[in-house]
Amino acid sequence: MRERELIECLARVLRPSAGAPRIVRWLGDDASVVRARGYAVTSIDTVVDGVHFRSHELTPDEIGHRALGSALSDLAAMGADPGEAYLALALPAGTELDHALALVSGAQALAAECGVTIAGGDVSSSAVLTISVTVVGWARDPGELVGRDGARPGDLVAVTGTLGAAGAGLALVEGRVAEGTVSEEVARGLRERYARPRPRLAAGRVLSALGATAMIDVSDGLATDAGHVAVASGVGLELTLADLPLAAGVSEVAQALGTDPHELAATAGEDYELCVCVPAAASGLLQEQWSAAGGRPPLTWIGRVVREPSGLRFVDADSQLSGYEHLP
Amino acid sequence: MRERELIECLARVLRPSAGAPRIVRWLGDDASVVRARGYAVTSIDTVVDGVHFRSHELTPDEIGHRALGSALSDLAAMGADPGEAYLALALPAGTELDHALALVSGAQALAAECGVTIAGGDVSSSAVLTISVTVVGWARDPGELVGRDGARPGDLVAVTGTLGAAGAGLALVEGRVAEGTVSEEVARGLRERYARPRPRLAAGRVLSALGATAMIDVSDGLATDAGHVAVASGVGLELTLADLPLAAGVSEVAQALGTDPHELAATAGEDYELCVCVPAAASGLLQEQWSAAGGRPPLTWIGRVVREPSGLRFVDADSQLSGYEHLP
Repeated sequence: MRERELIECLARVLRPSAGAPRIVRWLGDDASVVRARGYAVTSIDTVVDGVHFRSHELTPDEIGHRALGSALSDLAAMGADPGEAYLALALPAGTELDHALALVSGAQALAAECGVTIAGGDVSSSAVLTISVTVVGWARDPGELVGRDGARPGDLVAVTGTLGAAGAGLALVEGRVAEGTVSEEVARGLRERYARPRPRLAAGRVLSALGATAMIDVSDGLATDAGHVAVASGVGLELTLADLPLAAGVSEVAQALGTDPHELAATAGEDYELCVCVPAAASGLLQEQWSAAGGRPPLTWIGRVVREPSGLRFVDADSQLSGYEHLP
Repeated sequence: MRERELIECLARVLRPSAGAPRIVRWLGDDASVVRARGYAVTSIDTVVDGVHFRSHELTPDEIGHRALGSALSDLAAMGADPGEAYLALALPAGTELDHALALVSGAQALAAECGVTIAGGDVSSSAVLTISVTVVGWARDPGELVGRDGARPGDLVAVTGTLGAAGAGLALVEGRVAEGTVSEEVARGLRERYARPRPRLAAGRVLSALGATAMIDVSDGLATDAGHVAVASGVGLELTLADLPLAAGVSEVAQALGTDPHELAATAGEDYELCVCVPAAASGLLQEQWSAAGGRPPLTWIGRVVREPSGLRFVDADSQLSGYEHLP
């Protein structure tokens, strides 16, 4: 496959998002041109075969989905309105055109789901499959956005959805636990959480609007990511390990791995849920409005923010947990 | 070196550009936040060791400079006002901290020169040194920007600066010609053109303001890049090979390589000059104002736009030239 051939095919796969009449120029010029709004929120994220995933364990469209999903998750954690994505593919020599198109199609399917336009990109070759994704979101005012540094003593800490699913899914994908450990349906669900993470974009915007003081997405594991919030905010986060919401099947997989399920949930990462801090006084109204809006994803209160000691502490764990590495 | 250690050091190397009071959040959060203006002009560009450069032939700061320079050149070709850059580094295991910082310092030095802020990035590991650079420029109105598709029959075609320097520089770097082929000073100049390309940002904005109808940067070689303009605009470009402005030393290096110097200049690429189309009626005034403003870089008229045949043609060459590949 020649790079030019792929670039020509991309125009058939990519579609501007229906909700985005802002694209002035996209594929086929030196740069893309997009009408801006207020403030640009930008993040770049690279995934490399053998480091962030193993290409033989995922389909090409899952690889494309995951690369975009993990990048968009950063916009969710800011409470930004997602706008555009730019995809840089570095493909090993001999990559089939269909394979490359499937990578992009996986990203395009998620983009469409999220109202995001893949507005540009770059194709080159490399010894190792590498995907760099730049995502751009927008906010009318910086005050709409939530950083990591705004947690204050007295805030309560919550997490969206469930944890441990991606880690358990990866254990299944890698064959580290036997197939019968969980039902086929649960196994499919866990694999899906690992292979096709859904960035919590809508939840991030709602949490921002309802008074979140600090927010981060759970990419490296709650123990690591909540620690970043504590350090950036100069406060302590006291979380209760037993309160972490476990995804279905995580207990069984953890048991098969000989690990505590809550520890797995706290450290395995890649769940792409949001960890959020909210002033205690605002938390009741937030929970009420969250439930009134359908309560999806569930919001679970897992701890509080204290003045000191600064850093992250699980009040019911003997030792402090730190992020676990999936791959050597 | 651990990735976290590098990220912490980056804050010491990176500096927001003095001309850019628009950065609200940069390093250390889930995403960077920048005040937008009008229209965002975005391009992503990846360079891979062994494909786009060979790391043993360049210093790490040259590699960082080149990666950013080639990305910024796309903004120059649009006539955009450069704003921010986002750097994703994938580093081989065992990369020394100093080496990684030198990569970033090289990019930072060019960014400072161009009034660009490196506003965010990502560090990960890979078997192969890979740098993805996303650059964002701004325009108040899309009409300020110049695409590839606006060339019209009757336009004249010009190129900024000189051609062939990067290709000749690479031949020297790779030892494909003997050291004494050109003087030491000329050799240094050619190497510098290859190792530290300067994107023609100011020239791009001026050419846009003075009526350019189509523009592209010379990255793959004029023969290839001017061909893109012809195809995108649906016109023919008739260029005169003998009129291409050669950089000092290109004739001698081409002779040593057994190549025609103008063919080298047309095909070697990576000069990052601008090829621009201008209505014939506007070209006199453009040349006058260009000269009045100092005439730097020189502007050389090399051809004209015709209705057909569509595509690129060198009127004084026997065969059509196509881009030559530096590396296998």
